Amino acid sequence: MKTSIATVCLSGTLEEKMRACARAGFDGIEIFEPDLIVSPSSPAEIKALADRLDLTLDLYQPFRDLEGVPEELFTSNLARLEAKFQLMQELGMDLILVPSNAGTATIADDTIIADQLRRAAELAQQYNVRIAYEALAWGRFVNTYWHSWQLVTEANHPNLGICLDSFHILSRRDDPSRITEIPGEKIFFVQLADAPDLGMDVLPWSRHHRVFPGEGSFDTVAFMTRLTEAGYAGPLSLEIFNDVFRETDPGITAADGLRSLRWVQQSARGQLPENSAQRDTLTAMPKIDPVETIDHLEVSTDSPDELGALLGTLGFRFVGQHRRKSAQLFEAANVKIVVSPMASGGTYIASVAVQVSDSRDAVSRAEALGAPRISRPVTADEVRIPGVYGPGGMQFFFVDERSSGWPTEFGATVAASSAPAHTVVLDHINVPEARDHFGASVLFTLATLRLEPLDAQSVASPRGLVHSQALESPSGGIRWIFNQVPKMYTNRAGEPVRYPGHIALAVNDLEERAQAAIETGLTVLPIPSNYYADLQARFGIDEATATRWQDLGILYDRNDDGEFLHLYTETLGGLFIELVQRRGAYQDYGPGNAAVRLAAQELHEQQHRLL
Amino acid sequence: MKTSIATVCLSGTLEEKMRACARAGFDGIEIFEPDLIVSPSSPAEIKALADRLDLTLDLYQPFRDLEGVPEELFTSNLARLEAKFQLMQELGMDLILVPSNAGTATIADDTIIADQLRRAAELAQQYNVRIAYEALAWGRFVNTYWHSWQLVTEANHPNLGICLDSFHILSRRDDPSRITEIPGEKIFFVQLADAPDLGMDVLPWSRHHRVFPGEGSFDTVAFMTRLTEAGYAGPLSLEIFNDVFRETDPGITAADGLRSLRWVQQSARGQLPENSAQRDTLTAMPKIDPVETIDHLEVSTDSPDELGALLGTLGFRFVGQHRRKSAQLFEAANVKIVVSPMASGGTYIASVAVQVSDSRDAVSRAEALGAPRISRPVTADEVRIPGVYGPGGMQFFFVDERSSGWPTEFGATVAASSAPAHTVVLDHINVPEARDHFGASVLFTLATLRLEPLDAQSVASPRGLVHSQALESPSGGIRWIFNQVPKMYTNRAGEPVRYPGHIALAVNDLEERAQAAIETGLTVLPIPSNYYADLQARFGIDEATATRWQDLGILYDRNDDGEFLHLYTETLGGLFIELVQRRGAYQDYGPGNAAVRLAAQELHEQQHRLL
Repeated sequence: MKTSIATVCLSGTLEEKMRACARAGFDGIEIFEPDLIVSPSSPAEIKALADRLDLTLDLYQPFRDLEGVPEELFTSNLARLEAKFQLMQELGMDLILVPSNAGTATIADDTIIADQLRRAAELAQQYNVRIAYEALAWGRFVNTYWHSWQLVTEANHPNLGICLDSFHILSRRDDPSRITEIPGEKIFFVQLADAPDLGMDVLPWSRHHRVFPGEGSFDTVAFMTRLTEAGYAGPLSLEIFNDVFRETDPGITAADGLRSLRWVQQSARGQLPENSAQRDTLTAMPKIDPVETIDHLEVSTDSPDELGALLGTLGFRFVGQHRRKSAQLFEAANVKIVVSPMASGGTYIASVAVQVSDSRDAVSRAEALGAPRISRPVTADEVRIPGVYGPGGMQFFFVDERSSGWPTEFGATVAASSAPAHTVVLDHINVPEARDHFGASVLFTLATLRLEPLDAQSVASPRGLVHSQALESPSGGIRWIFNQVPKMYTNRAGEPVRYPGHIALAVNDLEERAQAAIETGLTVLPIPSNYYADLQARFGIDEATATRWQDLGILYDRNDDGEFLHLYTETLGGLFIELVQRRGAYQDYGPGNAAVRLAAQELHEQQHRLL
Repeated sequence: MKTSIATVCLSGTLEEKMRACARAGFDGIEIFEPDLIVSPSSPAEIKALADRLDLTLDLYQPFRDLEGVPEELFTSNLARLEAKFQLMQELGMDLILVPSNAGTATIADDTIIADQLRRAAELAQQYNVRIAYEALAWGRFVNTYWHSWQLVTEANHPNLGICLDSFHILSRRDDPSRITEIPGEKIFFVQLADAPDLGMDVLPWSRHHRVFPGEGSFDTVAFMTRLTEAGYAGPLSLEIFNDVFRETDPGITAADGLRSLRWVQQSARGQLPENSAQRDTLTAMPKIDPVETIDHLEVSTDSPDELGALLGTLGFRFVGQHRRKSAQLFEAANVKIVVSPMASGGTYIASVAVQVSDSRDAVSRAEALGAPRISRPVTADEVRIPGVYGPGGMQFFFVDERSSGWPTEFGATVAASSAPAHTVVLDHINVPEARDHFGASVLFTLATLRLEPLDAQSVASPRGLVHSQALESPSGGIRWIFNQVPKMYTNRAGEPVRYPGHIALAVNDLEERAQAAIETGLTVLPIPSNYYADLQARFGIDEATATRWQDLGILYDRNDDGEFLHLYTETLGGLFIELVQRRGAYQDYGPGNAAVRLAAQELHEQQHRLL
């Protein structure tokens, strides 16, 4: 489907917004009137710029408070409307959005409203303009799509159709299934928006907290599926009022928006039968099976010796140096970590390599989601693992059977580890992400690897709330957590510092392994006594166990599914390791303990003058 | 009244929070349990630190999900509670908060709930602890203060009373008037919190968006008045869950909190009859009449020559240089602006001097609101105007009859201006404020000068939403607008730049004055043609008028009260001047036009390479 985006989604001037939309690859835009009014460019100049950028001008919006008013006011509204039709001619535009009256409406009579809409459509016809009538969720008398469709049916004019906006429908928990009863050609325009479930009144919710499809809690895929079944064939547009987007580089926001339109179309394709006639109106992405296995992690570090020792204390074996490069391979059971020394920049997860059946499909899918391909040439006799950059700079690599032999370049033999595979398992990874990239990184990662989101969480830290989003693969092979970095993550001198991510390894002998690691010199993150006093009060843990756990830095949780023990190493310039042991069917991450960890890290780093 | 604050209000570690509360001048604190659990200090160390800081430990909180549960669970809850009583003994604390059960309650029977509360109180008695039972707005069975009071009455135990939290009562639009029926001594604790009207579900609203009393939309003064009438005599505490406070320096937040407690007590005093017995339990502030007149503004500038010329084009007369200092006085009718040359720092309103009947009362009041006094010595034969620093660094000076002769130091004669006083009037000032200081600056300004807040607004700019709060004096003599500076107010190189404030002058001959100013070289902010096309469509303005206004940079608004014409000068390093003309009884500021101005400024400054 043809893709479009409303200029109100983006920061900057109208001209900056248009250039950002074109660079991202949108086919067209909606002109949000206030953006035009404050622009120094004449309508003819905007038209010419759009032509040069190869952007269509799809919708002029909004024209407010037209209908359901006394005749005298309606006449003056028609004059106001005609002025906009004349402006649209200068812009070369032929479609205008008329939201249902939320301000001046005083007449609830459907016959009068339909008649006023018809008269507006007659005026539009004289200018070769079409009107898309949209039911606002907070419209005075008209606030459901079905009501707007009934009015359009009654008005019965070829220049009048409806606009469907997923926010206005899904925010009211309205049922989108009757969309299929509306002829596709009478749906003149579609705006897609998602939103997190904030329990707010619809108006402030809509004005400040919309997000791109797939980034919120609405079932935008079901909405898209119904639309397609109705025979709607585009354009598919985004109208997202979001306070953060308004403060973000428009190039970033536009790229994120186009990705979400690709994702929602592909997801809706998955809902439609293969032989569905409408299915091919939806733009396809290369399909891959859900990814279930992280092949290896690459950690960039300016402290390779310390990192190697840290991994060593936790049971990792140094496999060897890359035959040509400075990278080193460490391995524990099936967990492989490549350590890449860098001159500076701290220590952080630089790339995640996942196992796929065909890396070409995976790269194509990631590219369709807007990810640039990574150029990393190899010599003729080396294995090349193809990869892409995610929105926040994380590198994703895709290992298939053509590249699975890469560890031999580190001198690994085929049966590298003598330890049983289950003794160390990659439990989850935790990746920090800046606010501007958070939603986009989450959507890109889940869409590229086909992960499922859990409920979002907020955790208190001494420097503010940390927002957290966990993604899991369908069979649980991958657990990937994004943490949104607090605004003021700086050291005491006010300089920005790297907010730490972590790698969590699951073991089945946490206490013994912790004891052994401490004996070989590992510093675990110290956890305060008060925490253990509370554990005793909450769970009836005995004094001896609490003391033993405190000596080992072990935190604890229990629920109906089982038990969870875990500890954290101290942070090495932006990365720490968590060891976890899950007992029974425990699936969670120890809620409450993350706040304890954040405070303990703050204190530890203050004492070591790192922050 | 004794003042207190919950540690959850503040960022940092528990020890940092305690030091911040002591510095701000609180008498005591509530220990928020998660803060203690993550602290490395033992309970005895916390007690000793509190003693040294002269802070009382007023309330241990919260103990969740105690009552309304089956007997087996209640027994285990009592064991959990007893562990906390033992901990409180180590802390030397005697009051614990038990919010109504919101998680595990399954028994709605008041007799059983009251019985469980009584048994908890009996256990508390053994430890010399008292229980303050609080109805959470989202409690499962108990969610109104009256219900909690009925249960406490039924339980009838000296160690059981209630805690009243204004948020839980006012967020549900519950009527606080029955508080006066509760004996003051059975109100064991009071938490004050305000909140803006966000139309959200109470739980997320409470957890993220509480603000200090006076900074939101609740009538916390009426609440405070009812409390006092009930005979409650303290402590008066703050429990504010706020995402911004969590990211702000705790010293700033604590000072802001204490100010709000001083304000709310003074305001409640004003509601009680002079002869009320309870009135004196409320801490008084020095009282002043509402301030209605800005005596003069002081503008600091690193471009004094340009600023002087700008004022000159707008009809200001250069009165003279200060006899000793580099400051210059400009005057137009009754509007006086002192220009203070500085080596660097741009141009901005550095101080506002207001007319009061006695500056000593005004300074005392400002000091009671936490403002430090300004040290600005003068020579023996000069007039000294006393003043204070506001929370965001703005200086407030108070002119009374002892200091009203200050202009003579600039060589002014008594009858300085020959122009009629009404030809130029100070219409309003607009002061930018950083997010961390925004709420505090608003509250300090309105409490110090006794201004009234209008509804808050948000205006779209190319760099994000600008939040705006207007304050007005009762008779309209002062209009003061705060704008919250968008996060990313930087130039193209990413360096922070001064977000502009402005001074708005009302004239009765805007077009003529604009024409004259332009002829003497003034550059007005250019407003795009598209704006005037829209004016024609919206208001039926004729082409000739629109063209004339565009040449003069004049914007327009009209409503039922009258008309509003205004223009902006170009910005001089952080300050611009607005000229306004109000026709009829127009009281507003031209809604919609601020967005046009922000976009026009962005463009103008981009073209002049200032941003």
